[in-house]
Amino acid sequence: MPALADGVRGGDVRSIAKALTLVEGDPGTRKGLVGDLFPHTGGAHIIGMTGPPGVGKSTIVDAMITVLRERGERVGVIAVDPTSPFTGGAILGDRIRMVEHSTDPEVFVRSMGSRGSLGGLGPATADAVTVLDAAGFDTILVETVGAGQAEVDIVRASHTTLVVEVPGLGDDVQVMKAGLMEIGDVFVVNKADRPDADRLVVQLESLLSLMDRDEWVPPVVKTVGHDPGTLTNLMKAIADHREYLEGAGIDARGRTIADHWMRLLIEEQALERVIGRMGDGEYSEMVDRVVSKELDPYSAVDDLFARYFST
Amino acid sequence: MPALADGVRGGDVRSIAKALTLVEGDPGTRKGLVGDLFPHTGGAHIIGMTGPPGVGKSTIVDAMITVLRERGERVGVIAVDPTSPFTGGAILGDRIRMVEHSTDPEVFVRSMGSRGSLGGLGPATADAVTVLDAAGFDTILVETVGAGQAEVDIVRASHTTLVVEVPGLGDDVQVMKAGLMEIGDVFVVNKADRPDADRLVVQLESLLSLMDRDEWVPPVVKTVGHDPGTLTNLMKAIADHREYLEGAGIDARGRTIADHWMRLLIEEQALERVIGRMGDGEYSEMVDRVVSKELDPYSAVDDLFARYFST
Repeated sequence: MPALADGVRGGDVRSIAKALTLVEGDPGTRKGLVGDLFPHTGGAHIIGMTGPPGVGKSTIVDAMITVLRERGERVGVIAVDPTSPFTGGAILGDRIRMVEHSTDPEVFVRSMGSRGSLGGLGPATADAVTVLDAAGFDTILVETVGAGQAEVDIVRASHTTLVVEVPGLGDDVQVMKAGLMEIGDVFVVNKADRPDADRLVVQLESLLSLMDRDEWVPPVVKTVGHDPGTLTNLMKAIADHREYLEGAGIDARGRTIADHWMRLLIEEQALERVIGRMGDGEYSEMVDRVVSKELDPYSAVDDLFARYFST
Repeated sequence: MPALADGVRGGDVRSIAKALTLVEGDPGTRKGLVGDLFPHTGGAHIIGMTGPPGVGKSTIVDAMITVLRERGERVGVIAVDPTSPFTGGAILGDRIRMVEHSTDPEVFVRSMGSRGSLGGLGPATADAVTVLDAAGFDTILVETVGAGQAEVDIVRASHTTLVVEVPGLGDDVQVMKAGLMEIGDVFVVNKADRPDADRLVVQLESLLSLMDRDEWVPPVVKTVGHDPGTLTNLMKAIADHREYLEGAGIDARGRTIADHWMRLLIEEQALERVIGRMGDGEYSEMVDRVVSKELDPYSAVDDLFARYFST
């Protein structure tokens, strides 16, 4: 589909929108497009953002868009909603808060569901980043709500990962943080106009000091999301991390991203080849035999591999 | 490993602990054990529990254990911590709040990490449920923190899914709920002694009334986690749902569970066969070629399947 790829590379908004819809579809269709675009990627800085619900991530994204636009950058945003795989996602729809940028042709915002993917963000997110990267966006923000797999995946999909926290959340938040501490390159204390913000900064810094990290020590920065003027330290931290990556070789992060993407595709193709070729009826019969305890799932899967892959 | 399987079936605590450690390991080792135990499963009612951080899920689990023990049931608990795949999990460790049951041999509590699995809860959780089911526990509670993939997976691993909410959380919680509404069989409003609890109950009920569900209408029940006396409605709702499933054929839910488990195993085995057999060096070279844009990931994966699977 070279015409569509050309449109994307030329930054044509309709082509980009069409390409993003296409990569949410089945692998057979998106493969050609991604193959065409892939050699033209690598220009964008990919920033992942995660954190618990209610911390104001979308507000920060909005403020970052404002700051980046002032610098003349083109900005792409992918908001992944992992809460609605059953409906195919996009419950967040076109987020109201980003409407102020909706008339700016140099800003492209897209909401995606995780589409029943078994792998958190799934390959469609990586493909969507490829589309925006090839379209020449300077910064690509990938935002996801929630804890768990999507948070892990965001590290494996971005150059710089921001973890957003907020003062005064519930009681097992401290426990949550233990997991989040491992994934952030930059920690953001949002709603920093609240009285206990400084206490949270100190807590995060002391937790970080206990960890065995490589030479990059993640900074903790304060923001007030609805005031883009408070983003100076955040933007500096992102620039510092980018500089660090370039020094240490951005390829190391690039390898993580490529490796993760390939693993997602291997999983997806394996399912497609086994279940797709088998036909629903036959696979269904096998599931029935597992339900009736006639066959255990490991033996079932061994049987599938023996039948469909001669290795 | 029939000796270990016998120990598990006899309810021997050390055998159960050993078996649970084994299923967290590599597929080759756990396969035999799961195969031995699998025909002896199906007796337990599997209850999944999820909800945002800070809602008091562990406190409810604790209270449920108390109530179920009073009825003479044996209870198994698997607390999955998806926040720490990098360390292999178990940051939650042996939860302090469950210590009061730690001397009761009829209660078995185990924390698991999601162990870098690409699939949320991962196959190890399904295997751990199999171990506890074969060991004769009447009720198995699977608890997970957070939103996203783990929440989806919990539906695909349990007969009855509880979604726990609490009055007065942050601003995108309403959005989160849209995703959560789809997965709950029973909704629990915890910390119901707070003033705005009834308002949340009404909100949830009205959201539920808008949804296109099958004949089971998920009830909304109130609890005060630290007071097991407040669990009467919750326990009744769980019993009602179980009765409903048995009427509608528990096999429908059983099929979902078996299908999901098989998909996880197909994914895992595909990765193992491709990357495992290829050898780290050769796979690594392929990743390098993707990083340098010489090869796109789709073509790379096509190449892998062509080499390692003759289809």
